Order: sequence, then structure tokens, then C-alpha cells
Amino acid sequence: MIVLGIDPGTAITGYGVVSGEPFGSLSLIECGVIRTTAHDPLPVRLRELYEDVSDLIERHKPDCVSVEDVFYAKNVRTTVVLGHARGVILLAAALARIEIYEYPPAAIKKAVVGRGAATKEQVQFMVTRLLRLKSAPRPADAADGAAAALAHIMGARHPSLAPHSGQPT
Amino acid sequence: MIVLGIDPGTAITGYGVVSGEPFGSLSLIECGVIRTTAHDPLPVRLRELYEDVSDLIERHKPDCVSVEDVFYAKNVRTTVVLGHARGVILLAAALARIEIYEYPPAAIKKAVVGRGAATKEQVQFMVTRLLRLKSAPRPADAADGAAAALAHIMGARHPSLAPHSGQPT
Repeated sequence: MIVLGIDPGTAITGYGVVSGEPFGSLSLIECGVIRTTAHDPLPVRLRELYEDVSDLIERHKPDCVSVEDVFYAKNVRTTVVLGHARGVILLAAALARIEIYEYPPAAIKKAVVGRGAATKEQVQFMVTRLLRLKSAPRPADAADGAAAALAHIMGARHPSLAPHSGQPT
Repeated sequence: MIVLGIDPGTAITGYGVVSGEPFGSLSLIECGVIRTTAHDPLPVRLRELYEDVSDLIERHKPDCVSVEDVFYAKNVRTTVVLGHARGVILLAAALARIEIYEYPPAAIKKAVVGRGAATKEQVQFMVTRLLRLKSAPRPADAADGAAAALAHIMGARHPSLAPHSGQPT
């Protein structure tokens, strides 16, 4: 199973492509970040994000996409812009007819670290260990993308971790 | 000038295609609504919305798209889902390399009715009158889409009505 994990952000979107089975070995195929230019108008940034995510899907042909759910920022405007970004990410997967699963941040931490209130450092440590990397992926957003992918693959170990299924029909 | 006006919604998105000049006659080419199925997963609904908006752009080849800005609902979840919908609408225009203008709801009312606190009925009345229609477009969301298009065309009459320009580069 190949999973594309995505941690959407307004300026930086982290992603990780992980292959593996729930109880088998796991390996990192690629991880990184998609940055958009803060000075560009929102539609241009959305287009860049959409094209980069579509390119990742085309190159890796993942079996599904695992996307971190919206983080409700204190600033409502930030949350709304994040909604725009998530919209085009979900669209890229839906147009490619790939299954989409959405997990709240706490569910991803719970699946990867064992507890929903884990720190960013604990997530990075477990991502590094589970994928047998020499060091944690940089920047941290890339590790968060990989964590989203890992959470989906390891979901079978946590039957209570029910995703919001978003399978395109 | 042909303008595609859009009033994004989570369940119903209203649109209106209007042709005209700031100080010349105005005419309605088409208006209507795009409905998505509430029971479908969000990615499927976003795909439908994206495909329908892309189809409108392809058929009418508007010079620009005028999109109503986010209405900050009391329910943050509703506002975030609306952000997802707006994201794919802006993307459809950006991928078609069409200029995008975003107007707050009050700016659209101000341009069409003359005051930002106008009622829904007043907007419908003025849309009907400006476009010389026999009756107000139904459902009301279609009139709101036409109002977004009218607001952009008539913007030249209100120099203070500065849109958030979102011209794709």
C-alpha cells in the first residue's frame, strides 16, 4: 500500500509518501513541502498547490491520500484560507479518483506516538524511528505529512481510529 | 464585458453570467444554481462544484469572475467547509487564467442597491430591474450570483469599491 500523507498549511504544506502494510515494514518513498509565495494572490497560490499535489499523485500513484483535518486557528481568517487550501488538495485526489481519508491532528498523533497530545518532537522522533531514517525529516512540516501517511497505514492497529471516509464514487 | 458572478455556498452555489458595460446596458446571459448532494463525501461535492464552474467558464468564456467573499458564519465548521468550496471555485478560474475579483457581501449590496445593509428582497428587486427581467431569478441564490456579476461591472460607478484583486499571473 502506498499512501500520500498531507498536512495542509496556508504557506507551507507538508507531504510524505509512505509504502507499507499495517503490520509489515514501512518505508519512506519521498517527503517534502510545497511552499507558495505569500505575496501572490490566493487563486495563484491555490493553483500552485493544486498542480504540485496533482504532480505527486501522478508520479507516485498512491492507493489513497491521508489528509490532516482542519486545525481551528484562533484567527478565523487563517482557518478559512486553510479551508481553501484543503479544498484544492481534496479536489486533486477526487479528480484522480483516489480514496481520501481525513484525520484530526490528535488521531494522527495517537496512531503514530500513542497519545493524542504528543508534542511535535515526539511525532518527529516516531516518524524517524518507524521509517528507519537517520534523522528527522526537515522541515518539520514534511515530517507531519509523513505522519499523516503513517497514521492511515497503522490505523488497523487502532480499530477505534475511524477516519472520515471520503472515498470518491 | 462578460462577467461570471458567483455566490459560493456549502450546499447551493448561485451564479449569474452578465454582459454589459459600467455605464451601458446590462443583460443576463444565464443564471442558476449548482447543487451538491449533502450525503456525498466532501471531496465528491468539491469535484462536482469544480466541474460545473469549469463548464460555465468554458461555455461563456467570461472576461473575469466576480466571487462573493466568505460570509463568516457563526458555526466555524460551516465557514471552513465554505472555504473548501470557494477554494475550488477560485482554482477553476485560476486554471482558466481568468481574472478573479472578490467582493465582501456588503460591497455587492452597496454596488447593486446603494447601501451595504440592503435586504435580500432589495437585492432581488434591483437585480430584476437592472437586468430588465420579468421576475426575480429563482432560487434567490441565482439572483445573488447575478448580483456579484453586476457589482463588478458597476464597480466603476463606485470608485471606492476596491476589490481584492486576484488576477492570475
